[in-house]
Amino acid sequence: MELDQPTLISAEQLKEFTINVFLHFGVPKADAVQAADVLSLSDLRGIDSHGVARLHTYFDMFKLARINPKPKITIARERKSVCTVDGDNGLGLVVGPHANQIAMDKADAHGSGWVSVCNTNHYGIASYYSLKALERDMIGWSMTNTTKLVAPLWGAERMLGTNPISIAFPGLKNKPIVIDLATSAAAYGKIEIAKRKGKKIPTGWIINKEGDMTDQPADMIEGGALLPLGSQRDLGGHKGYALSAMVDILTSVLSGANWGPFAPPFALRQEIPSRSVGKGIGHFFGAMQIDGFMDVPEFKLRIDEWIEVFRNTKPVKGQKAVLIPGDPEHEEEVIRRKTGIPLIPAVINDLTDISKQTGIAFL
Amino acid sequence: MELDQPTLISAEQLKEFTINVFLHFGVPKADAVQAADVLSLSDLRGIDSHGVARLHTYFDMFKLARINPKPKITIARERKSVCTVDGDNGLGLVVGPHANQIAMDKADAHGSGWVSVCNTNHYGIASYYSLKALERDMIGWSMTNTTKLVAPLWGAERMLGTNPISIAFPGLKNKPIVIDLATSAAAYGKIEIAKRKGKKIPTGWIINKEGDMTDQPADMIEGGALLPLGSQRDLGGHKGYALSAMVDILTSVLSGANWGPFAPPFALRQEIPSRSVGKGIGHFFGAMQIDGFMDVPEFKLRIDEWIEVFRNTKPVKGQKAVLIPGDPEHEEEVIRRKTGIPLIPAVINDLTDISKQTGIAFL
Repeated sequence: MELDQPTLISAEQLKEFTINVFLHFGVPKADAVQAADVLSLSDLRGIDSHGVARLHTYFDMFKLARINPKPKITIARERKSVCTVDGDNGLGLVVGPHANQIAMDKADAHGSGWVSVCNTNHYGIASYYSLKALERDMIGWSMTNTTKLVAPLWGAERMLGTNPISIAFPGLKNKPIVIDLATSAAAYGKIEIAKRKGKKIPTGWIINKEGDMTDQPADMIEGGALLPLGSQRDLGGHKGYALSAMVDILTSVLSGANWGPFAPPFALRQEIPSRSVGKGIGHFFGAMQIDGFMDVPEFKLRIDEWIEVFRNTKPVKGQKAVLIPGDPEHEEEVIRRKTGIPLIPAVINDLTDISKQTGIAFL
Repeated sequence: MELDQPTLISAEQLKEFTINVFLHFGVPKADAVQAADVLSLSDLRGIDSHGVARLHTYFDMFKLARINPKPKITIARERKSVCTVDGDNGLGLVVGPHANQIAMDKADAHGSGWVSVCNTNHYGIASYYSLKALERDMIGWSMTNTTKLVAPLWGAERMLGTNPISIAFPGLKNKPIVIDLATSAAAYGKIEIAKRKGKKIPTGWIINKEGDMTDQPADMIEGGALLPLGSQRDLGGHKGYALSAMVDILTSVLSGANWGPFAPPFALRQEIPSRSVGKGIGHFFGAMQIDGFMDVPEFKLRIDEWIEVFRNTKPVKGQKAVLIPGDPEHEEEVIRRKTGIPLIPAVINDLTDISKQTGIAFL
């Protein structure tokens, strides 16, 4: 009954373990710390699917030498506020922060900075990057493509990733507005959990391998696909597909990475694409100096007013209030910085396995 | 039965009439031509709700002196690739193209250009602007906020506009990929049509004034609201709300315009907001030089490949093929440039009324 009962472990302890795992594979110290910081923020903000729960996947990839531990990250091409970065097949958790830094430095120099990245790998949570821009009084943007899981509207096969979009806006007294959304109707993790628990899922999340909508999670896992945000034509499924396409093109067509169904797999269980149309997967980062549009304190005050007005929206019956994007994650972060990160047994097992294979102490 | 039977009128004839109507109110010739061009493209591309069907609304606004026919459009603040433009309460159809031009000129000079616009009015179709960037081998972005119609997830009242996002990418042999989507689950026009025809609408489009989902279009029109893309929490309604918030902030919080529920009305029948938090409504334009990321022909070739791969997605039963964003509009444009624009009797009546009131010949 309580098989999923989590164990609480401090963020610091997990971060140290993560750093040591990356060091084990020859990742330079500064990069290992950076990579662990991305995973740690995900765990702190309650986005459990993107934190240490994925460490074993990174571990697998390093073991198979599929990721370069010492990438030479270069600007392949540039023109003032825009450029393409080649991540030299490094960890996305290292290439992403580096490229995002370039976007912010460009914003310092040119008012805004826009970086499309190829030859990279999974970069963690999209909002890690948009949040960084806030420290420099900028508006931050972040997108990535991912391994195929989603069908375009009217398609019966996986062609796109869950391709997230994040953008963040700073408040004055209020926590920032942090938008971070996958362009699919639901996350793949939810399908997996429902399957494990033997539960049905809402109609509109998935199709089976024939392309029919179904409420049976196994139908998606066994060759079906996720549906885009909007689910079907009547409810705007063409819009979710278009947003996912936008992310795919900005991150991967524009940078020279593998787009659409050709994005390489992140995990061993994922299918190897039939064809390569570029290098690695792709990211896209943007940063805009708020000061180039408006006095920074004035903008932050206007964001505060926006937040307060939207919080005071008359709620529908049965709901306490309208949330502001980022609210659930801000609340989780406050709690988890005190109590630690709750890890389910499956994740504990993964980390214990890494510990055994590497000799790095865990717990 | 055939009350809605349309009359075909050539785009040129409609454009000339539109230009004359704007001239009648003292709009300078070049601006009148520009404004008519935006409405005309909407009609040509089959987006009937945003073309001459709205001319009577612009006419009403001019008659009431709510729009400045001779705006002095200025850059209020700038920093290299970014700036804020004040539209001096001009027609959005004039301010929009002017500000979009600034974004493209900035992209020429700085690699990219990003313009947030306040003190403006309704700007027509979002994709008019993103399409313009293609003529200069740029990727074009366009967004606007609009009068409140949409409830945030878990809200029971109108707080946001249908806030569209457009972005366009050029192909080599193929027509461009043109994304242009309202961030609501459905367009307001569809609710109006269903009400007029006495038809039910899909659950997930609207709520009534108590915040309950309903399939009766009148429930929305009489004080209810549209739902954001995703419709409800399970299907990602929080995502559509977040995207609408993003558009509201980039266009209007950032520029000093009226955001959220305070966006001024576009039409006489719409409610006057209780409060003003800025000037007019807001737009946001972006342009990025493709050449700053990749050779232009190479990018266009990659877009062609993307289009061809996605067209060849295995379709679901009952559908011929997966569409590329922009396909229906490209097809409509080819037809309408030959046959003319089909106008329903209600629109013909509107234009005839303008003709009577102004003395400008129509038909």
